[in-house]
Formats: sequence, C-alpha cells, structure tokens
Amino acid sequence: MYEGPVQDLIDELGKLPGVGPKSAQRIAFHLLSVEPPEIDRLKNALQRIRDGVQFCTVCGTVSDQEKCRICADARRDRTVICVVEEPKDVQAVERTREFKGRYHVLGGALNPLSGIGPDQLRIRELLARIANQEDGVDVSEVIIATDPNTEGEATATYLVRMMRDIPGLTVSRLASGLPMGGDLEFADELTLGRALSGRRELSRNA
Amino acid sequence: MYEGPVQDLIDELGKLPGVGPKSAQRIAFHLLSVEPPEIDRLKNALQRIRDGVQFCTVCGTVSDQEKCRICADARRDRTVICVVEEPKDVQAVERTREFKGRYHVLGGALNPLSGIGPDQLRIRELLARIANQEDGVDVSEVIIATDPNTEGEATATYLVRMMRDIPGLTVSRLASGLPMGGDLEFADELTLGRALSGRRELSRNA
Repeated sequence: MYEGPVQDLIDELGKLPGVGPKSAQRIAFHLLSVEPPEIDRLKNALQRIRDGVQFCTVCGTVSDQEKCRICADARRDRTVICVVEEPKDVQAVERTREFKGRYHVLGGALNPLSGIGPDQLRIRELLARIANQEDGVDVSEVIIATDPNTEGEATATYLVRMMRDIPGLTVSRLASGLPMGGDLEFADELTLGRALSGRRELSRNA
Repeated sequence: MYEGPVQDLIDELGKLPGVGPKSAQRIAFHLLSVEPPEIDRLKNALQRIRDGVQFCTVCGTVSDQEKCRICADARRDRTVICVVEEPKDVQAVERTREFKGRYHVLGGALNPLSGIGPDQLRIRELLARIANQEDGVDVSEVIIATDPNTEGEATATYLVRMMRDIPGLTVSRLASGLPMGGDLEFADELTLGRALSGRRELSRNA
C-alpha cells in the first residue's frame, strides 16, 4: 500500500509472530521518526543473532559462555535436573524462585507430524548427564517440566520410559490442576479433571 | 534475564511501540529459529529506512519517486485537496475508495506543549499549493481530515482561519458522529454530543 522501503519494512515486520499488519505499520512509522542510532542498535542486535547464538554445553540454554550462568553456579544443587522444552521455560521456572537445581533444555517436544522424534531433541545428552555423574555428583531427581499439552505429555511419557531403569533416580512431573487466581467455573474439563484426579488430602477423620 | 545477544535483541524489540516484554521474547526466539536470509531481509529493510525515506515533493507522503503515485496520477481530481496529519491517514482515506482528489500531509498536528507550532507542519506548503494553481488548476475545496481529537481540532481551526479569505475556496471538515456498526449505549458523551448537533434532517412534515 505504501511505496518502496516503507512497505518492504512493513512486510518484513508483519512476518514476525504476533505482529499484525496494523502493528507492523505502527512500528515502521515509529522507526521512520527515530534517530538513526536507534535503528542501528536494533540492526546490530539482529546481526549478532544472525551470526549465531551460543548454547550452554551442559544444559543447552542460550548462553554467552561455554557454560551458562546457572550451570556455572556452584551454589546450584547438582543432584536435581529440571527438564524443559525451551530456554524461555528456564526463565519461567527461575521466576518462581522455588527451584535450586539445574536445567536441561530439550529444544522442543516430540511431534512426529512435524518430524520431531527423540533424535531431534537433546534426550541423549540428558541420559549422558545422568550416566556420567557430572562433577562426580549423582543425579537423584529429574523433574519433567515439559508443556502440559499433547506433545509435552508425549515427551514426558517417553522420558519416563527411558529413565525407568536407572537405579536411585526419581523422575517426577509438574503438577497439573487449576491455575492459581483462576476461576473453577471457567476451567476446561481436562484441567478440572486433572485437578480432581490429583487432589490432595487435607484431613482424614477416624 | 537471558545472556548476551538474545537479551540485547529482546531489549531492542521491547522499545518498539506495542511490543511488550513477552512479545519481544517471542519474536527474539522466533528469529533464533529462522533461516539467516529471513533476518537479512529484515535488516536490509531497516537499513533502507535508516538511509532515509523519500517524501513526495507535492503532498509530503512517503514515496519512492519525486512525486507519489497519487500526485502523479492524472486521473485524480486536482481541484480537491484532503489535508491529513500522517501518511497512514492517506491510506485510511484511500481505503474508503470515496475520495478521488489529492492529499496534503501536514506531518502532525499542532501541539504547543510538544513544541509543534504551525512552522513545524507543512502548512506553508499547503497555502502555496492553493495559491500557485499547481498544473494551472484552481483548488476549489480543501477537506480537513485531521484527527478528531484536541490537537487535530486545533489544527483544523487554525487551517480554517488561514484559508478563510481565499476567494472561491470551500473548506470542509470530516463529519463527527457515531461510528458505523457502533452502539449508541457505548458512545462517549463527546461523540454522542457531536452526533446530536450534527444531526441530519430526514423529513419535515408541513
């Protein structure tokens, strides 16, 4: 609709997830009005991403060192590994401040229709971490924190099967149930069903 | 929260209008997963915007030629000029397919608090277009299509004052009133007030 470079930029921005045609136009006109160094900073950030991002050689999250800050932190509990799908899931768990162990990023979830099988995920690396007694410490628990959807559940089931026979290892899964602050009335059947079957006993009278 | 270039990109994306921290993270991880040429296209589009965008020497909208497509189109009515604040307003009026004249982009609206006075807008150029009988054609009507807010109204009032004494020129303003498809119940007082005072007579019985 616009002519030349403005429309090209709107088209490119419109390909980004969550950016519709209206937002793309708004962002493009914003960039038309900012100082050139502002655009340069964005361009340079894109260039660095394009040059390739480093991943932690231990857990597989994005990192600017060979080991990410969490894997390099001696205060983190080396006996517990929380398995997640993506680096952003690491940040989500970190925000709870409840977890003191380390992570393992699979790089996705099993999805045969998209051609993602066990070999496309960092499952072999996870089993190696457990077998190799990294830093001479035995892993005692693996918490599976894949997404609570079809692919995440399938991945969890597969992981449990792979780790079932490792002696002394506990494998757990994040609880499913009603989200805090939510409303029972608006919970979907699946969530409410999980909340029911996973109910906790609060008291039991004689 | 993330390390290195990923966080830098999230920070830069988060400065764009309408892009919150969650969207910025989502876009950054999307860009991590795309092929390098995809990023190059976005980078190049940014570079071209940074190098400077050309504006139509007649109406002031963004253009890749000296004259934009509308100003260069001989089929457009040269006697009517629609005055808008921004290039995106040109596109909004074009979408109606109701207007066959040409445009004049002011580059904003009067806003003394932000230091935008008449000299910061392309008002002198508008008056020159009317006075100079561009292409030998007299301008017979100027439609003021600035935004229906405080700044846009002030700009409209100022423009009317500047053009009041030009012989043979009609100056009009877009109608204010209830938006089509809207709901009377949810209209704000100002809009409903405008709709009342601008009511159209449909019949008058003897």
